[in-house]
Amino acid sequence: MKNPNLRQLFEELLQNMYSSEGQIIETLPILIKLASLPELKEALSHHLKETEDQVIRVERIFSLLSLEPTKTPPKAIEGILNEAKELIADKPKSPALDAAIISAAQRVEHYEIAAYGSLKNWANDLGLHSEIVELLQKTLGEENGADKKLTKIAEGTFFSSGVNQEAAAATG
Amino acid sequence: MKNPNLRQLFEELLQNMYSSEGQIIETLPILIKLASLPELKEALSHHLKETEDQVIRVERIFSLLSLEPTKTPPKAIEGILNEAKELIADKPKSPALDAAIISAAQRVEHYEIAAYGSLKNWANDLGLHSEIVELLQKTLGEENGADKKLTKIAEGTFFSSGVNQEAAAATG
Repeated sequence: MKNPNLRQLFEELLQNMYSSEGQIIETLPILIKLASLPELKEALSHHLKETEDQVIRVERIFSLLSLEPTKTPPKAIEGILNEAKELIADKPKSPALDAAIISAAQRVEHYEIAAYGSLKNWANDLGLHSEIVELLQKTLGEENGADKKLTKIAEGTFFSSGVNQEAAAATG
Repeated sequence: MKNPNLRQLFEELLQNMYSSEGQIIETLPILIKLASLPELKEALSHHLKETEDQVIRVERIFSLLSLEPTKTPPKAIEGILNEAKELIADKPKSPALDAAIISAAQRVEHYEIAAYGSLKNWANDLGLHSEIVELLQKTLGEENGADKKLTKIAEGTFFSSGVNQEAAAATG
């Protein structure tokens, strides 16, 4: 095996992302329910399906590496998700709540972009099976796509004014 | 005041980032101490100075908006930093530890990129003082720059082989 330390690091972060995806799958329905804008509901629902596929991809990587999933508590994503839930709690359905949901979801996406970016690079450097690199690249592409779609919804490419403009202009 | 809900959201996230920067300033010296590669130590030290400037910028925004800083516990960044500290704990100084430090720092940067991106867009949408938008844009630019520099260190643009290649090739 190439450097066991980098391999250990890869496995630790992979286990972490497996647990993280599980937490995200539990939280996305809450965001979908609270969102008002149909485009936002659709984007989050689409990303929930992608996240379910991402779990299957990590399970395939476990299988290729003969690893068993452990249930490490994913402290980082738990912190991000708990903060997100607090940020949206007690806010009425409104363009501002949609803006909060988009912002919280983007912090999750960005965390995942950084994590899957490291995993893909390490898989390459460790000379792991090319299928593993491809699976990680596919997930990374989805995370980047989800982030960009949320930016477009916030900035209004998908409709005339944008969530933020509506939220800013609303009288309360 | 334009929509009080979006304004409240802006203030909540701004307070959160103020507390978050404080935690990051406490944690970066630990990463700097554990890093082996001079380029990595330098990049993290440079970013520590940037982070101190970012705190001053948030204080300037507080002042422009007549806000007092509160000490909200920043759960998301605490989770990210605690996980980072665990990931690097008990690992000997090595290229693999450098790879772990880079990866952990990039997850912090990405979280901040998403947060400051939202703050800048909301400041624009709320029609806040143009200096506020500029201060947030400057911080956002620094976070993006720090992330790109860390990617280059990992991939080896700054030296012949790259941390990851060294970590992968090391015999243990």
